[in-house]
Amino acid sequence: MSNLRTVSVEWQGNLRFRGGPAESPSLLIDGDVKDAPGPMHTLLVAAAACSGSDIVTILEKSRVDLRKLAMEVRGERAADHPRRYISIQFVITIAGDGLDETKARRAADLSLTKYCSVLQSLNPDIPVTYELKLES
Amino acid sequence: MSNLRTVSVEWQGNLRFRGGPAESPSLLIDGDVKDAPGPMHTLLVAAAACSGSDIVTILEKSRVDLRKLAMEVRGERAADHPRRYISIQFVITIAGDGLDETKARRAADLSLTKYCSVLQSLNPDIPVTYELKLES
Repeated sequence: MSNLRTVSVEWQGNLRFRGGPAESPSLLIDGDVKDAPGPMHTLLVAAAACSGSDIVTILEKSRVDLRKLAMEVRGERAADHPRRYISIQFVITIAGDGLDETKARRAADLSLTKYCSVLQSLNPDIPVTYELKLES
Repeated sequence: MSNLRTVSVEWQGNLRFRGGPAESPSLLIDGDVKDAPGPMHTLLVAAAACSGSDIVTILEKSRVDLRKLAMEVRGERAADHPRRYISIQFVITIAGDGLDETKARRAADLSLTKYCSVLQSLNPDIPVTYELKLES
């Protein structure tokens, strides 16, 4: 797989932008958070999809038959401009056959601290923490 | 506006995830880049929408009547895992009444180096560069 990722993004009026790679349908992002998530929300959704993909992959290799994976992600922004993120917290809810706390925690740890390319692209001074909820 | 941003993200099978804030429609992200952009593409789209929103706002204040704003964003990933971004390049195409190179360059500079909250949340060792194209 190439080391380059390319997206094309077009302004759609107001603070709306539509874009994505050539290979897939595009995303709408709305800075006014009316028609779509805003850019800072979208960063959190990207981080969740990235770490979620890792968790799905790791648990499959651990012979877990995953039924549910839900993540709530909260980002705290600096009070002053440019109001970047200063901390990010995940609440991860997982259910699956063959799942136990050890497997779930290992998958979450590996994903959030090592594997997730989106989180690894963020400023390393942003603490990323998580809380784990196992459902039966 | 609150300093917290919160999104809820649900796994949709394979490597697909759907999520967003409570206030807007959600986004689909697909780690297989079939049904939607992947997480690393989505990070670039978020960066473009963020800096694009700044550019739109700055140019409006400079009395430019914007007709077009298109951005191509290329991110180079590290060869080794976790394959984070190591450089990001924007190609920004702008057209509008009252636009000149000075105004366009000032808006792009301010946005990419100072204002954009998504870019400011990235690792500061990732160089972000841009090329500007003015259309009449």
